[in-house]
This record gives sequence, structure tokens and C-alpha cells, in this order.
Amino acid sequence: MPALTSDIRGVVPIAPTPFLDDGRVDEASLDRMTDFFVGAEVDGITILGQLGEAPKLDHAEGVAIARRVIGRTSLPVVVGVSAPGFAAMRSLAREVMEIGAAGVMIAPPNTLRTDDQIVGYYRNAVEAIGPDVPFILQDYPLTFSVQMTPAVIRRIVSENESCVMLKHEDWPGLEKITALRGFERDGSMRHIAILVGNGGLFLDFEVERGADGANTGYAFPEMLVDVVKLNAAGRRDEAHDLFDAHLPYLRYEQQQGPLGLAVRKYVFKRRGIFTSDAQRKPSMGLTAQAKAEVDYLLSRIARVDPRARLPA
Amino acid sequence: MPALTSDIRGVVPIAPTPFLDDGRVDEASLDRMTDFFVGAEVDGITILGQLGEAPKLDHAEGVAIARRVIGRTSLPVVVGVSAPGFAAMRSLAREVMEIGAAGVMIAPPNTLRTDDQIVGYYRNAVEAIGPDVPFILQDYPLTFSVQMTPAVIRRIVSENESCVMLKHEDWPGLEKITALRGFERDGSMRHIAILVGNGGLFLDFEVERGADGANTGYAFPEMLVDVVKLNAAGRRDEAHDLFDAHLPYLRYEQQQGPLGLAVRKYVFKRRGIFTSDAQRKPSMGLTAQAKAEVDYLLSRIARVDPRARLPA
Amino acid sequence: MPALTSDIRGVVPIAPTPFLDDGRVDEASLDRMTDFFVGAEVDGITILGQLGEAPKLDHAEGVAIARRVIGRTSLPVVVGVSAPGFAAMRSLAREVMEIGAAGVMIAPPNTLRTDDQIVGYYRNAVEAIGPDVPFILQDYPLTFSVQMTPAVIRRIVSENESCVMLKHEDWPGLEKITALRGFERDGSMRHIAILVGNGGLFLDFEVERGADGANTGYAFPEMLVDVVKLNAAGRRDEAHDLFDAHLPYLRYEQQQGPLGLAVRKYVFKRRGIFTSDAQRKPSMGLTAQAKAEVDYLLSRIARVDPRARLPA
Amino acid sequence: MPALTSDIRGVVPIAPTPFLDDGRVDEASLDRMTDFFVGAEVDGITILGQLGEAPKLDHAEGVAIARRVIGRTSLPVVVGVSAPGFAAMRSLAREVMEIGAAGVMIAPPNTLRTDDQIVGYYRNAVEAIGPDVPFILQDYPLTFSVQMTPAVIRRIVSENESCVMLKHEDWPGLEKITALRGFERDGSMRHIAILVGNGGLFLDFEVERGADGANTGYAFPEMLVDVVKLNAAGRRDEAHDLFDAHLPYLRYEQQQGPLGLAVRKYVFKRRGIFTSDAQRKPSMGLTAQAKAEVDYLLSRIARVDPRARLPA
Repeated sequence: MPALTSDIRGVVPIAPTPFLDDGRVDEASLDRMTDFFVGAEVDGITILGQLGEAPKLDHAEGVAIARRVIGRTSLPVVVGVSAPGFAAMRSLAREVMEIGAAGVMIAPPNTLRTDDQIVGYYRNAVEAIGPDVPFILQDYPLTFSVQMTPAVIRRIVSENESCVMLKHEDWPGLEKITALRGFERDGSMRHIAILVGNGGLFLDFEVERGADGANTGYAFPEMLVDVVKLNAAGRRDEAHDLFDAHLPYLRYEQQQGPLGLAVRKYVFKRRGIFTSDAQRKPSMGLTAQAKAEVDYLLSRIARVDPRARLPA
Repeated sequence: MPALTSDIRGVVPIAPTPFLDDGRVDEASLDRMTDFFVGAEVDGITILGQLGEAPKLDHAEGVAIARRVIGRTSLPVVVGVSAPGFAAMRSLAREVMEIGAAGVMIAPPNTLRTDDQIVGYYRNAVEAIGPDVPFILQDYPLTFSVQMTPAVIRRIVSENESCVMLKHEDWPGLEKITALRGFERDGSMRHIAILVGNGGLFLDFEVERGADGANTGYAFPEMLVDVVKLNAAGRRDEAHDLFDAHLPYLRYEQQQGPLGLAVRKYVFKRRGIFTSDAQRKPSMGLTAQAKAEVDYLLSRIARVDPRARLPA
Repeated sequence: MPALTSDIRGVVPIAPTPFLDDGRVDEASLDRMTDFFVGAEVDGITILGQLGEAPKLDHAEGVAIARRVIGRTSLPVVVGVSAPGFAAMRSLAREVMEIGAAGVMIAPPNTLRTDDQIVGYYRNAVEAIGPDVPFILQDYPLTFSVQMTPAVIRRIVSENESCVMLKHEDWPGLEKITALRGFERDGSMRHIAILVGNGGLFLDFEVERGADGANTGYAFPEMLVDVVKLNAAGRRDEAHDLFDAHLPYLRYEQQQGPLGLAVRKYVFKRRGIFTSDAQRKPSMGLTAQAKAEVDYLLSRIARVDPRARLPA
Repeated sequence: MPALTSDIRGVVPIAPTPFLDDGRVDEASLDRMTDFFVGAEVDGITILGQLGEAPKLDHAEGVAIARRVIGRTSLPVVVGVSAPGFAAMRSLAREVMEIGAAGVMIAPPNTLRTDDQIVGYYRNAVEAIGPDVPFILQDYPLTFSVQMTPAVIRRIVSENESCVMLKHEDWPGLEKITALRGFERDGSMRHIAILVGNGGLFLDFEVERGADGANTGYAFPEMLVDVVKLNAAGRRDEAHDLFDAHLPYLRYEQQQGPLGLAVRKYVFKRRGIFTSDAQRKPSMGLTAQAKAEVDYLLSRIARVDPRARLPA
């Protein structure tokens, strides 16, 4: 599999991890999900991220999942290797690169505060995984409590040749994209890919600001793909029309923590992709009322986008 | 003015504070805003909240604003009295109640952690302001970093007769409303009003879950009023249709911190309510691109709801 | 009273605020405390700091305390003006400077994270209080959760001519003093005074590293004065001998939060300075066992330093 | 090896992990350290804690260290199994128990806030490792930002039969010990062992309050052993005399983060136990001045306690 470069663009879904009701990894569902993503014409797949419940997997499980997904698709597969220490990060990164991952994603530990601490952390991380492994910088203050200014991101990009992409999920974040693209234009930072996360909540404007696509876990990646394409084709109103039709549900899905994941897994189950919507603990299930709310929201999307119609 | 009770329902906007470009409080705009809220048929007004830049006002300014708004309307006016200590909280609460406030709102300091610390804080606050002053409990973890479980809210309500309302802005928060209404049904907690905040991002479902209305700073309170009424009338689809038409902009406005406030002030200026969209420092202005995005979003709402059409 | 300059050195105690049992400010004790500090041959007094329960005072009370202390001594008096917003900070700063304060102290709000946020905050603060008011930068991560690197402190000092002193209470903090003094030596930062806080827990080595003295609330400022003088005189072992005799109690006193303050107020009461050891809420009293522990510790110091002997 | 029970008492050092200068685990030093602890007459050894740089080890390294220490001593060995998720915690716990660990230690993740979240976390953890594995509850707010009230600890102890000990490192913490022992006396909580951490900074009074000993990384565990014994023998003044002689250095060693660890590793190297004082990254070395400060402090202890005399 070719290594990830800063030319990556389009939609790279963040994959949830399917479990059986007894908590074991569900390989059949994993295969169906991989095939589903391929069918949705995405540009890559990210596994073992926060949404993928990576911290709840042990090392062997994580490697097995990577091996299975990588073995089933020719799409570039990015693997989250965030870990409490560099030894575990290195082990996982080297191992998944050997079996064909296209790159890795690294989130900062929530104890980092000063600019220098953040920059130093990524310097150490690159030293640990090796400078030959392309990595994605994850900037998600809402979950990780680490605040990176555009200037800090520029320092990390400049120091580390292997940083090929920013997973952008600051909130608010539109001006950050504009600032980073400004750095490229004024020559103070080399080009990197910017794919947005945060559930896609601002994708409509983020692509207009210069983002190259989405790297998030929305349960209908088909919509993300279309919005990115419509925007690229200059069909602005149509992009917003489609996005807006999904937004009431997208907002519901993007609730933080185990609830947002529960919604996504429920929809993946309803879509026939997952056998079970089980999470590993600490977990949360949807109440009957929440499920009815999701169903209602999807039925409303389906008036415009039939792909949101659930099987009965 | 009659004191606030747990019967309050409907829409109580959180008012921003208008400043002139030189930073002084803008009294003419304050009057226009008060009249605008009355015209929008809201059920009360909350001033000096977080959105009202209350921490950036000194004591005399805060009291002057309260006096002016209270003097101009017969609607119940709630005054935010959150303060770093109980002496300042008491001074402000006693003073505004004397000039006719209907009640006060108290947010927790962001250093509280354990259940007992939170409950103890409100016990002390009530002792400071006096048990005769009706107060609203503000539960906004995203901004204040204080997490109150339903059981903690029940303890606060049970200990303090003067707690008449919850300003609910937890996120996710739907199940919290359901849990609190369940406490009422099973007799373990007396009834309090629940009005929702968080920019109204989940108002459509929150009223279905049992919320009595909204207590938030959305720049088109007319929409909030309508959604609450449509829901009360059992016209569910219409409520969602109207809400969904606003959601793309509502989401944009609800960006955290000074940016969200900048959007609201910009729209209040465009609607002819505010003379200036100035904030006190630390502040943030909108870039030309952000303004264009807001204009675009409002023009899209206006296709459905003409009230969102801005004067040229 | 002459304005504070970067030449300040020696010991500037952080004063607690004496209250009567009913919560009112105790002016007689305030006078006794002022006289006590003068008698202890300190070099200034800081009032209305965190230890002085400043957030629990309203504006008028704070000003009255400042007026009383300033009126009773010719020592430079520094006033804490930290506030949730710049309007209140400005009001207090201008008012206390007019009645003769030598300067003000400003702590950062606990929401600051990035380097730029911290530097920007002090820029705005100086703009608010005016560039003619000398100020002390308080660096206390343990309490304020704000982490300032030496480079950030250098930026603040360089941007703001009126920054005359660092109240240093980082922990660990010895290398920070060395770094800042290194900046002075290499010409990258002008000289500022560095007085240490953190209860004096590392005063013995901090003065050896280049600190100019102490700015902390230890209940025996006489010891701090002696240690600073012994160190200045090159009598290292004697400085440590005296410091070490006090350390078991000093450590006990330096427990964080209301407990540490309760210990100090108890000792001030036992020393005949305060009438009451009352705190305003949220407060904490000492248990009988804690008082006995303090008494025991002081009796042990008294074997070496008779000033620690309490009246029966 | 017999399982840990609530009868554990005395001193159980928290072991640092020795690395060679190239970052590999140093097995020879590991053996010397194990032998050193045995010679110091401690009552057990805790490995793979925070101080042992556990998050910087990968799974295989952690197990290898456990195997080596357990194989070399008949003392009970406790293994830290804190992990970002329960799968990794379970893997490590089951594996080390099989090779003879006496129990495990579990620290809370720094994202827990409410009482229920904390209690729920330990319920899930016990479910993961199995109810047959004795565990130590680590309560260290300064490092983990999780605040457990005595009532929360009681809930955890009551729900989980396998909780045999509290590693107490709250600060301030004396009243917490008194509260927990009060729960035992009033019959509302069964007895558990309480061993104190926090570098031993309050050991002198903690044992008087009812702690059963120390579970901390002080570089002279011999002193901890003596203080616990002197206190048990009712020789209070002698206990304090010995403790106070060490306190100036103990305070220096107890500086938070990598610095405190650097001090301990430096002393272990000087004492001939470790070959290198290397830390894995993120790491910190001691400056020459810091080393000189440590040497000075130890030379001062050595006047009273010759065990602190370093080889030349």
C-alpha cells in the first residue's frame, strides 16, 4: 500500500469498531464495514481512532483489526497509534506499517499545556515511530483539552517532514483553516492536507475555506463524499442543500462521548453493516426514545436523500 | 415585578450587552433590544449572563443595565449574579431585587469537582443572597467544566426552596431532562421549570422531552417562540420544519466563546437593534468572510422564514 | 508612597484578611497585622491576594482595606486586582493607586491555555489599568492552572514596561529562576525583581538561584527576613539551619486551599495578631487534632527559634 | 505468593524503573533494586506505577519487569495496571497475577468528574480484572485531577470486596484518613489498609492519624520503615526527629513530574543501585546545580542519619 502523502484529499471515514454483544471484536461486521466504505467511494479509511474505541482494545486486538481491514481493501488505511507512552506508540506504529498501513494518526495527551510542550511531544513521537512513517496530526481540543494555535501547528509541520496531514477538529475552527492556508500562501509553511472532523458539523464551510475533505465518523459518508465533490465542482447551493438536509441528524449524531458513538453504531446496525451496536465499557446504549428520535430524523432526511431510508 | 416561580415557561432570551465602539454601554441599543424582545413575544429576559459579557462589567455598570431594562418592560427580568465570591454575589442580588428583578441566575465556579462541592456551593450561595430570592441553577458543563448529575440537581432543588428553574445546557442533555422529569413523576423531586440553553441546538427534541422552553441567546427568538408553541400544540412536523430551516445558521451562531457572540452581535446590528457589534476585551470581530457566511445562511433561512431577511 | 520598581527586594508578606466571627472585616486586627509586619522588618505588604480571600470581598470592602493598611504604614503596599474582567480590574487598580498603593498584582484567569492567550491577557490588562501602574506578574500554576514558560514571561516583561516583578510560585520552579536570570545575563530580557511564593517551601534554594526575596504568607515572616539576609551575607549553612527548623511547620501550613489559610489564621490568632481565625465561605476550620499538630510543630521550632513560642 | 489482603502494613516502596542510557530496561539494576528493598526491610514492593514510568513501557516490557522482580523476592509484589482501557488493564492484571503478583494497583483516568463516574469506573475495572484479584485504590488528585471524597471511597470499598487498600495521596489529606477511620469505627465501612504516598511529605502525622504505613518512592525507604516503627512503638518525638532530618531533602525529591523522578534516580545511582539515571521520554535530567543541591541536602541529613551519606 502506498504511503500517505500530503496529496490525500476527499473523504476518509473514521471507522467505529464493531463488537459482538459479548464484547469480542466482530470480524464479519468489520468486513462488511470495509466493503461499505469502498462502496461509498471514500478515499481511505482511518481505524483505531477515538471513535473506534481504540483505548478499549489491547495491543493484539488492535493489530488484528488493522490486518483484517488492510487485507480487504486497496484503499489507504490510516491507523490511530495514540498511546500513553512512546514505547507502546512505537510498537503499534511499526507493526501496522509492516502489514501495510498507509500512515498513522497521533492525538496529543490531555496533559499538554504550553506551546513548547505540544511541539516537544510531536518531536518525541516522531523520534519514537521513526521519521519514515507518515503521520496525521489530530487537533481536537474539545476531546483532548489541548489547544494548538496555527503557529504551533506550523512549528510541528516544519519540524517534522513526516507530518502529512492535519485532522482538523477545533471548534470554532473556520478561521484556523484560513490561517493555515494563509501560511502556505505566504510561504511560511509547506502544504499539508487538511481533512476535517468534529462529525462534519461545519464541513459545508470548511471545504470553502480550503479544507481538502473530511476525516470523520458520520454514518452516511456518502453525503460527505457528495458535499466535497459538489463544492469542488463549484455547485455551492447544491452542496449546502444536501448538507442541510442531513444536518438535523448530523447534529444529533455529533453529541460528544459514548452517546454519539451509540447513535452511529445504532445506524450502522440499522443499515445492515453491524450485527450489534454494542460498545465496550465504559459504554452507553440508546434509550427507546433516542432510537425513535434517530428514526424520525432519518425519515426526514430520506425525503431528500433516499440513502437515509432505513430498511424496515 | 412579581417574583419568578417554577411556573415560568416559554422563551426567556439571554441578552447580549450592547457597547459603543469606544467600549461604553450603549443605552439606546439596550432600549431597542428590550423593545425588540417584547415585540417578539418572549416570556422574560435574562441579562448579565455569560453571553451578556457580565464578567467584563463593573458592579455599577451591571446595576445600571438592570435598572434600565427593568424600567422599560413589564416582563420578568432575571439577572445573572455569578461572581467569584459570595459578598459580590450578595451585593448584586440584593440590589437588583430591590429595583425589581424577578430572580437571579447562578452559575457554578469552574473549580468545583465533587458532588458535595457543587451542592455545598449552592447552599452557601442561597445563604448569601437570602432564601427569599428566587434563583435559576445554570448547568453548563461545556463552559464551566462542572458536571452535575441529575441526582446532584435533585439535591440542590430539595435543599433550596428558592431554586425555581434549571437553565439546562448540558451536552448531550436529552436524557438528563428525561431523568429530571422522571424524578418529578416518582415523587422524589418537586417540580421546577426547565428552560434550555446551549444556543437552542437541541430545542426541537428538548421540548418533546419535557423542557418548558428556551433560555438562550439565539438571534431570532421569534423562531424559539414558534417552536415552543408548535410543540405545545402538538404540531410536531411543523415545529421541526421551522427549526430545521434555522439550524444551519443556529449551528454557526452557537460556536463557543467570543466568536459565537460576535455572530449574534453582528446579526443584532444588521437587524437594526444594536448600533455597534463591539465586544469588550477579550473580544473577537468577524472577518469579512465570516460575515459573508452569515449573510448566506440567513438568506437561505429567509426562503422559508422571511423574518430572517436582513435589511439591505 | 513611591511606586514599586524592579528594585524591590527582601520580604513582602501576603496578608490574610482578618474577619470577625460574624464575617465582617476586622479593622482592629488589620491594624495589628500591619504593625506586626512593620515590626518584623519586612519590605512591603501585599493585600487582597488569593490568600487574602480577595474574591470573597466586594469592591467597597477591598478599597476600605487598602485605605486602612496604606494609611497606617509607610511601607509600599501592593494590592491584588485580579478580577474576572478588565472593567472591575481597572476600577480597583485606579482607585487603590489614587489612595497610595505602590503597585498591583495580577493573576491569570484559569481558562488561559496557549502562550498567545497568556501574553494577550497581560497586554489587555495593562491597557485596562493604564501603563503607569506598576504590576506584579503572578505565576502560580498549582492554583491557577496556567503554565507560563520562561519565554512567555520574557514576552510579557518585554511588551509591558510596567511589569516590575514576578511573583514566582511555579512548582517545581528552581530552574525557572535560573532560566530567567540567564535571560537577563544574555541580554534578552531586562531585569525584574523575582520574589517567591508557594509558602516559601523552596526559599532556601530559591534565593541561591537568584530570587530577590519572598512574597508569601508564611506566618513567621521574621524567619523569611532572616533567611534572605543570611543568604545575602553568604552565611549559607546558617540560612539552611534556620529554614530547616521551620520547615516541618512551614510544610504543614503550605497545604493548599482553605486548610492552609486556616492554619495561618489560627497561628495569627495564637500570636495575638488576629481576634478571630474566621474565614468567609467557602471556609474550613481546624479540627482539634489539627490545632494540636500545629502546636506541636511550633513547640519544636521554638527549641531553636524562640519567636515560634506561642503565648499560653 | 500469597494474595494481598487488607492486613498489609508497613512500607511498600513504589519502585522506579531502571533504564540503560540507550533506553532499554536495565535488568541488573532491577535486581539490585529488588535486593536493596529486601535489605531495607520493607513489607512489599510496588512496580509499574506512575513513578515507575509504566505508561512509557509496552506490554511485554511491563510483564518482563514483573516477572523478574517477582522471581527474585518472596515479598508481596503489587503491579500497577492502570491503562487507558479495560482490555489492556485486564490483559496485564491476569498475566501478572499468573506469574505471582500479590495484587494490582489502579489509578483513575483523569477524565472522571462526578462521584458516580468514579464509582462506576472501579466497578467496571473490577469486572474487567476479575473479582478475585486484590486491588489497591490510588487516590492522587494532584496528578490525576480526580477528586474522591471519603464517601466515594466508602462506596468503592463497599461495592468491591477485592479492594484491600487505599494508596492515599490526597493533599491536604490528614482529615481524609481520620474520616475513613471514623467510617470503620462507626461500622459504615469495613477495614482496609491505608498506606500513604505523596512522597511521604506528611508521613509523620499520617501514621498518627491512622495510616498503616507508606507506599511511596522516597529514595531512603529505610527512614520510612523507621518512622513507621517508631510511631508504632509510641516514640513520637524520635519519629519526628528522624523525619524532620530527612524533610529538607524529601521535599526536594517530592517535586512533581519528571524532576522529582530525576532526583530519585540520581540518588539511586549515587547509592550504587542504578547504573544510569536515564528516564524514557518525556524526560528530564538534573542540572549540575540541582545535583549539587541534592548532595548538599544529603550531606546535611548524614549528620544525623549516616545512611544518607553517599559514596564519594
